[in-house]
Amino acid sequence: MDKYVEISILLQIYGKLLTKKQLNVLDNYYNDNLSLSEIAENNNISRQGVRDLLKKGEDKLFEYEEKLEIMKKMKKNEQTIKTILAQLNKIGDNSSDKKVEKILNDIQKELRVLV
Amino acid sequence: MDKYVEISILLQIYGKLLTKKQLNVLDNYYNDNLSLSEIAENNNISRQGVRDLLKKGEDKLFEYEEKLEIMKKMKKNEQTIKTILAQLNKIGDNSSDKKVEKILNDIQKELRVLV
Repeated sequence: MDKYVEISILLQIYGKLLTKKQLNVLDNYYNDNLSLSEIAENNNISRQGVRDLLKKGEDKLFEYEEKLEIMKKMKKNEQTIKTILAQLNKIGDNSSDKKVEKILNDIQKELRVLV
Repeated sequence: MDKYVEISILLQIYGKLLTKKQLNVLDNYYNDNLSLSEIAENNNISRQGVRDLLKKGEDKLFEYEEKLEIMKKMKKNEQTIKTILAQLNKIGDNSSDKKVEKILNDIQKELRVLV
């Protein structure tokens, strides 16, 4: 997975465990796509200061993931849900019952709530 | 939910974020059901020391849950899965197709992997 995408996901999961400064800088960099210079200017810190906060925050995110593995589980769940959606389609192919079709639609909706 | 059950679940989710001492004492108390005296004796600390470690560890677990809400999401997912299982049963009731029956069984197995 692309490093930017990965850190953006980790930020969504574990961001609240970072310090406000770390969260702010990582959010600016990975979600708002601001440059180091822009973040430095906006926050009145040096570019090296931004770099340090980024590094520290990233390390923390990877450390949390290594311990809790929430992203790993989410990815596994996504895979399982894809499998289930494919199986539901097979039922649809094997049935022309309107009632069954309605239930299949309901299940698909429910599955999207998961993860 | 029962406090013991709740903390036992939180321990499974966030235990690795606690210190070794906190984790050990909470594990002894909530999973092995040892008494304060037994834990104190096994670890060569006072009962008050055990109490302090328990309190600190519990506070940490609740703090992590307040920030990350993993247990809350897991409970929601469990509810959704129950709903889906009930809907799958309805399809089973509306179908006598062997192929459909087989797919329904497969989906039920997949669903158990989730959460």
